[in-house]
Amino acid sequence: MMHMLDSRQPGFDAALRQLLAFETAQDPAVDAAVADIIASVQSRGDAALIDYTARFDRLSVTDASQLELSQAELDAALHRLPADTRAALEAAAERVRRYHERQLMQSWSYVEEDGTRLGQQVTALDRVGIYVPGGKAAYPSSVLMNAIPAKVAGVGEIIMVVPTPGGERNDIVLAAARIAGVDRVFTVGGAQAVAALAYGTQTIPAVDKITGPGNAYVAAAKRRVFGVVGIDMVAGPSEILVICDGQTDPDWIAMDLFSQAEHDEIAQAILLCPDAEFIARVRASIERLLPEMPRQDIIRASLSGRGALIQVADLDEACQIANYIAPEHLELSVAEPAAWLPKLKHAGAIFMGRFASESLGDYCAGPNHVLPTSRTARFASPLGVYDFQKRTSLIEVSAVGAQTLGRIASTLAHGEGLTAHARSAEFRLQD
Amino acid sequence: MMHMLDSRQPGFDAALRQLLAFETAQDPAVDAAVADIIASVQSRGDAALIDYTARFDRLSVTDASQLELSQAELDAALHRLPADTRAALEAAAERVRRYHERQLMQSWSYVEEDGTRLGQQVTALDRVGIYVPGGKAAYPSSVLMNAIPAKVAGVGEIIMVVPTPGGERNDIVLAAARIAGVDRVFTVGGAQAVAALAYGTQTIPAVDKITGPGNAYVAAAKRRVFGVVGIDMVAGPSEILVICDGQTDPDWIAMDLFSQAEHDEIAQAILLCPDAEFIARVRASIERLLPEMPRQDIIRASLSGRGALIQVADLDEACQIANYIAPEHLELSVAEPAAWLPKLKHAGAIFMGRFASESLGDYCAGPNHVLPTSRTARFASPLGVYDFQKRTSLIEVSAVGAQTLGRIASTLAHGEGLTAHARSAEFRLQD
Repeated sequence: MMHMLDSRQPGFDAALRQLLAFETAQDPAVDAAVADIIASVQSRGDAALIDYTARFDRLSVTDASQLELSQAELDAALHRLPADTRAALEAAAERVRRYHERQLMQSWSYVEEDGTRLGQQVTALDRVGIYVPGGKAAYPSSVLMNAIPAKVAGVGEIIMVVPTPGGERNDIVLAAARIAGVDRVFTVGGAQAVAALAYGTQTIPAVDKITGPGNAYVAAAKRRVFGVVGIDMVAGPSEILVICDGQTDPDWIAMDLFSQAEHDEIAQAILLCPDAEFIARVRASIERLLPEMPRQDIIRASLSGRGALIQVADLDEACQIANYIAPEHLELSVAEPAAWLPKLKHAGAIFMGRFASESLGDYCAGPNHVLPTSRTARFASPLGVYDFQKRTSLIEVSAVGAQTLGRIASTLAHGEGLTAHARSAEFRLQD
Repeated sequence: MMHMLDSRQPGFDAALRQLLAFETAQDPAVDAAVADIIASVQSRGDAALIDYTARFDRLSVTDASQLELSQAELDAALHRLPADTRAALEAAAERVRRYHERQLMQSWSYVEEDGTRLGQQVTALDRVGIYVPGGKAAYPSSVLMNAIPAKVAGVGEIIMVVPTPGGERNDIVLAAARIAGVDRVFTVGGAQAVAALAYGTQTIPAVDKITGPGNAYVAAAKRRVFGVVGIDMVAGPSEILVICDGQTDPDWIAMDLFSQAEHDEIAQAILLCPDAEFIARVRASIERLLPEMPRQDIIRASLSGRGALIQVADLDEACQIANYIAPEHLELSVAEPAAWLPKLKHAGAIFMGRFASESLGDYCAGPNHVLPTSRTARFASPLGVYDFQKRTSLIEVSAVGAQTLGRIASTLAHGEGLTAHARSAEFRLQD
């Protein structure tokens, strides 16, 4: 059912390129609808938000204030959780917090001989919005992964929006918001929630950045408000690439591939292995384990459409191919993972060793599960504390320093034909 | 000629909002033309590039290899420079390099008690493209500010594109490329150059990220290829905000405002000062100095359209207003700049003290001159080494660690209805 490829086949490069190709074209109808929604929320504020929420989420309120959940309601959700769920959520949050604290950027400066001081001041964003999908794709882990880095960064206020279709709330999601330290929660979703966060309404305060996953409408809305506010990357389908030396239990590998494929029919799961016999065993495991999976239809569609078992010459070649693929998740299921790490340049997260299944990273290892997809790990990074901090350059020039710098600036400004730049520097020259 | 505002006037907030408002709507005709150009370069490669370069830049070549400048040609341009220009360029490059070296991110990891190792691996981008405008807006300083951070980051190969309309080359720009360590230079520009960098042609290699300023076509092209490659922010008009205590030479302040206004009719220059009498003196300086400026028409259009002299209650209020404006450049032209710094949260760069004119930062102080515009300093940072590095999360889980993490992950995965995620963790449990 999966594509079977061999790196020694003629045409392998083309076959791999085709396997990875993913059409990201945006639907013009979605984009037009989103443009209308944004314009309406921008001009009519709360009134538009109430209308859209009634229409799209079947949730009727007479006043926008009824769209806010109180901290008491979040508390109640937390207390309703089964003890093991609550404990797991709290343990995951604690581990995520501890890892992210290492990412905190610090301000720095240095003074030169002539008294000129240069530096970089790091500050947190004032207010951020976190989009959390409602309905069946409601993932509490996603609340933790978005809110905790913002909290660690020192963001002043975290606003979460989560649609509650038909008024149905997800206790684990609300409990996760409580644990992560979200300040305010509004039960709105879709493009209207993104517009409200970007421009503000009478009830929902405007934020400086919006992060979090959503459907095609949410993604289109985020693209449109980018510039007015910051956004995280618009994610493509999720991906896993497993490099295996053929010595891991094939059932483990099969299940790891399933764990990516069960997200979505267009998710991508690929195995690179030099051992043909092992690949056959993984294939057998897939056939045997698949019928046990509640989401087997999604898994089957994903694996047969975009999945592949690829035989490679050796692990060296596997690393080269991995760098080309630049996968979101990369499992290095080999005897000595550290030995191969220096050869791996592009990946969102690398899971090292047979025991590091991707699902551990998705929930609780500590690092963020929001990762660059669709080969963007060539230039992009996991979501982190650094996405909720920003830098300001500091330039303090002494009277003496202005003499040296002013002459250089004046020469270069004249070279660019910018006389006012030159004169501004020359005014500070004292001789 | 400039807007005169007073923070105590009724309607001041609305007047300020209107002053800052800037329509960023994209021209659909430009966007459609750019879409065609990109599609053509993607399908026809070098042939399309040759056609567009002949049509738009009046530069005819028979083979795309003729569009490349050799290192010998860059060397020759460097040797043709006047000695003072070369020295200024080299001094500026050295200072920019020294500052940016402080921004280098390092990899880190830590080991937990049960042997689980977590970390963050930092790597440089493989290949980046730098867009440099040709013609009258050809700024050598911009070559340094884009190429040096990439070089410091350890980028494998830096490709520069610069149009040479009618074959006219700018020696200072080419010399700057040589000094900054650019690896290859192609004399192409416009949307076709952006497309070539994003998708690659037979002659121009595909890059992983494109940075650098350009006209509306270049900006539209960068927006379109974003996702295929990384891009820097699409910049709005340049801005300066000066906070002055009324004790700086008013001529200096007037010229600092000019130095921003001379860039562009839609550039923005604003002064905040508590001293009405000083504001009048700055106004007189503006009237007196303006006729001496070669670019006086541009300056006058900028100042009368988007400039303002604003009287504020005190410096505290000036800082509050500055945080709302979140300016690209902020001059703190006061007696004790360090005392006010903690009150300033949002700015691209802060110039501290009367001797720190913005033009020193534009050319040679050391920090980058590519800064967030249009209030985006609320969430964005100067261009830096960090824009040419990326992070990969490392998750190495020990057999013992998988027991703790596996139970947490399993509980949370079942809570999200993701059985394969849960099973993948459970397979690693040993009891």
